[in-house]
Amino acid sequence: MLQKTNRTTLVEQVALQIQALIESGKWPVGSRIPAEPELVAELGVSRNTVREAVRALVHAGLLVPKQGDGTYVSSASILGVVLQRRIRKSSLMETMEVRYALEQEAARLAATRRTQEDVDTMLHYLDICNKAAEAKDIKTYVEADIALHQAIVGATQNSLFIELYEHMTEALQESVNHLTEMKSHSDCHQQAHRDLVKAIVQQDPVKATEAVQRYMDYFREELKKEQCE
Amino acid sequence: MLQKTNRTTLVEQVALQIQALIESGKWPVGSRIPAEPELVAELGVSRNTVREAVRALVHAGLLVPKQGDGTYVSSASILGVVLQRRIRKSSLMETMEVRYALEQEAARLAATRRTQEDVDTMLHYLDICNKAAEAKDIKTYVEADIALHQAIVGATQNSLFIELYEHMTEALQESVNHLTEMKSHSDCHQQAHRDLVKAIVQQDPVKATEAVQRYMDYFREELKKEQCE
Repeated sequence: MLQKTNRTTLVEQVALQIQALIESGKWPVGSRIPAEPELVAELGVSRNTVREAVRALVHAGLLVPKQGDGTYVSSASILGVVLQRRIRKSSLMETMEVRYALEQEAARLAATRRTQEDVDTMLHYLDICNKAAEAKDIKTYVEADIALHQAIVGATQNSLFIELYEHMTEALQESVNHLTEMKSHSDCHQQAHRDLVKAIVQQDPVKATEAVQRYMDYFREELKKEQCE
Repeated sequence: MLQKTNRTTLVEQVALQIQALIESGKWPVGSRIPAEPELVAELGVSRNTVREAVRALVHAGLLVPKQGDGTYVSSASILGVVLQRRIRKSSLMETMEVRYALEQEAARLAATRRTQEDVDTMLHYLDICNKAAEAKDIKTYVEADIALHQAIVGATQNSLFIELYEHMTEALQESVNHLTEMKSHSDCHQQAHRDLVKAIVQQDPVKATEAVQRYMDYFREELKKEQCE
């Protein structure tokens, strides 16, 4: 029994070591991890221990084995993987409501905490959004829109907030369908964006919250219409 | 190479099977899981496969081995475990800000969606809160306060919202210190609670949001004072 526990602990230690290499970015997403003999030599543990630790991380969703081609890093964050799996079981509306909850309070906090650097970043992405909308360049618009919202959440200076929001956004990118994406880039949506950034620049938390609620309500209406069509 | 992948898949399948037993509550938190020979017989796989699957779930935080006394279920939700681990790295203020973000939007959604059953539950816990505050019974107050907030979030009828909020609350219960807890049960905090429930009963989303912001701001001030003391 004692031996069994020690073995569990050893596998767990190796798994945590590998996890740290992945989370720190030393082993980036998409890269192939070193082959088993290399890991055995580097970590100073048995082949079986390495194998089991790798399997634990496959289960956790950080690694993925490719048949005949070693093992690859599939995600850098367990929180990201787990949130993504959970979000896949939710409806788009459910997920958007949680995301808007974060955006709303982020807007309020950003209005009182934003630095000049935050303001510069927001204005930069807002400008790209505007130009992309004029040029009807959806791809650029979507990217700049995500970057703009991340800049606003970044201005909260709250790392837990920032990380949760980032994972929610990643998870949504998978599930949001293009029709919905396109519809949301209307004039109404954009005007709310401009008002939101303006309120944050002017350090007005009430107007910032109002702007978020406006595009939230707008999105809700659009989604309802789409589901009726 | 082919064999290696198949083995990984088999361990993963068994791990998912055990995970489903835990998540469904068939193997409840705190219970000891069946001994290895039983699992081998039940799942029809080798002893090594069972062991590895169990170790993967130890790594995931669902199971915990006790030296000389088998393996116990330590959590029913991977999302809960992962959020808890992440929250442990955050400050109390960071975590509270995210929690308040959820409470604020939940209050707004609850005001338009609450059923009569939701209202009854809220009034029930608000009543317990009031009586416990009068009797200066902190333990009862804290429990009823948590139940009240969960009832409000429940009224959003959004399962992702409900689950995230529940895990945030669980994680906080670990970290919130009693001094802060006690201070937050002041008259000011309680008045905001009463106003919040009243606004939801009256289906007034604006007043519901305001009430949440009031106790958020109050908590922020209290925490600042405490940190200066």
